[in-house]
Amino acid sequence: MELIKGNEIATSIIAELKAEVATIEGRKPCLALVRVGEDPASVSYVKKKEKTAAEIDVDSRIILPPVTISQAELEALIDELNADETVDGILVQSPLPAPLDELAIFRRVSPDKDVDGFHTINLGKVAQEDSSGFVSCTPAGVMELLARSDVDLRGKHVVVLGRSLIVGKPVALLALQKKAGANGTVTICHSATTNLAQITQMADVLIAAIGRPHFVTADMVKPGAVIIDVGINRIPDATRKSGNRLVGDIDFDAVSPKVSKITPVPGGIGPMTVAMLMKNTVKARQLRATG
Amino acid sequence: MELIKGNEIATSIIAELKAEVATIEGRKPCLALVRVGEDPASVSYVKKKEKTAAEIDVDSRIILPPVTISQAELEALIDELNADETVDGILVQSPLPAPLDELAIFRRVSPDKDVDGFHTINLGKVAQEDSSGFVSCTPAGVMELLARSDVDLRGKHVVVLGRSLIVGKPVALLALQKKAGANGTVTICHSATTNLAQITQMADVLIAAIGRPHFVTADMVKPGAVIIDVGINRIPDATRKSGNRLVGDIDFDAVSPKVSKITPVPGGIGPMTVAMLMKNTVKARQLRATG
Repeated sequence: MELIKGNEIATSIIAELKAEVATIEGRKPCLALVRVGEDPASVSYVKKKEKTAAEIDVDSRIILPPVTISQAELEALIDELNADETVDGILVQSPLPAPLDELAIFRRVSPDKDVDGFHTINLGKVAQEDSSGFVSCTPAGVMELLARSDVDLRGKHVVVLGRSLIVGKPVALLALQKKAGANGTVTICHSATTNLAQITQMADVLIAAIGRPHFVTADMVKPGAVIIDVGINRIPDATRKSGNRLVGDIDFDAVSPKVSKITPVPGGIGPMTVAMLMKNTVKARQLRATG
Repeated sequence: MELIKGNEIATSIIAELKAEVATIEGRKPCLALVRVGEDPASVSYVKKKEKTAAEIDVDSRIILPPVTISQAELEALIDELNADETVDGILVQSPLPAPLDELAIFRRVSPDKDVDGFHTINLGKVAQEDSSGFVSCTPAGVMELLARSDVDLRGKHVVVLGRSLIVGKPVALLALQKKAGANGTVTICHSATTNLAQITQMADVLIAAIGRPHFVTADMVKPGAVIIDVGINRIPDATRKSGNRLVGDIDFDAVSPKVSKITPVPGGIGPMTVAMLMKNTVKARQLRATG
């Protein structure tokens, strides 16, 4: 069994991006990070993004509107950022507190600054195999991890657990594309799937993104499979000072001896998501310069 | 075995649409049909669409630019139709003759007049399960045929053969949606799939859209499955006056005794596609009236 080291691969990508940013003449790329409210996970994610941006010399502009901001005010803020020629990428940290309409806000972001890849146009471009758009960061990170771990999906059976808009569906569409490294036969399973184990047992590559701790057990996995664990679940752990720890959707200890390659949680997909956000931001800057 | 009679179901839909159009006050819905060149299949498809429009009291405006029209001129024509408040739907008959860039033309059509559902935004909306857009006609016709044949996809394994932009991918995304009638577990197979028969044998519902005559044979099909044949292939037939006949991607004679429901070719999906185009056109008119 080979561990797919997301941390190391993300570090390489960050180094590549730093070198690329150094070649950009004039203004450095700028990422606007909008966070509403004090959700602890959101605070920590935005901090991590800010820190990584600084590492590669991407300017970040942190915007913290009051938690009482109205939908109209937040939309006006997005419009301002859309119009600001010094802003290349806009990220609105999810989840937005109620009653804000998150999907409407994501769609308000100009498609050419949508470095999170959540806009309808950018999702449509993934389906159309049009690489001019932005692929959302977690699915892009999955594909990059596979490519840099020498896993070619061509002719492989790729089983995706979860049909979410930000992971399951886009990663399925990417795995299906005609381009090199992709060309997988793709099955998407979800909460209504009946014969789940039968299908996961067929998977040459299994991508789990359902948010259920240790859901995938050893008996569900084909020997020699490649396993990508997108789940990040917090479970109680009395041995930790914090009283809990992060685990994936895969029962790692039981599954890992059986497979050829597997991502850990943490240190697998997590750091890749931030790296791909930076990659999208640099791309947005380059497109702005030449467009 | 029960034959899924696309002709009859399409006739019902046409009757429903006619009744709906009769209730529209003021201007009738108007569909602009743009055909470039004299491809015989295109001539016949446009004629069929014009005839069906007339049946339900939808105005059709047939536009036949010279085959020498440039990309810029065709785009200007689309822009005019986009701006014309008396036009609800715009259909550019595919294929456009070379060197016209078909995808660029499809994307030029305003999303709210894109009754063919080919625009990036409308495909993205299918992925986002946003029903405010237009679903492309053949996939919409597949879903409507299934619904009106009492086939609920929930928990079923739906296998789609073909990953095209206008059939395979959107029909897979529709079958996967959380809405009633859908919720299928979906596998998409294509030219790079290695263990094809193994996968098709698992299909509770098999949707074939690859354009290869009689490709799916009896041994590839699970007993009792539901079969939707989207293929329309012309093969030589010396017994016909024309010297050829239309067949689907399914070897109908061999497969049909084994399955529970199956669409014929012709008379299956074909008439549904035209019916769904009319449904989209009426929807476009209704949205324009209330928007």
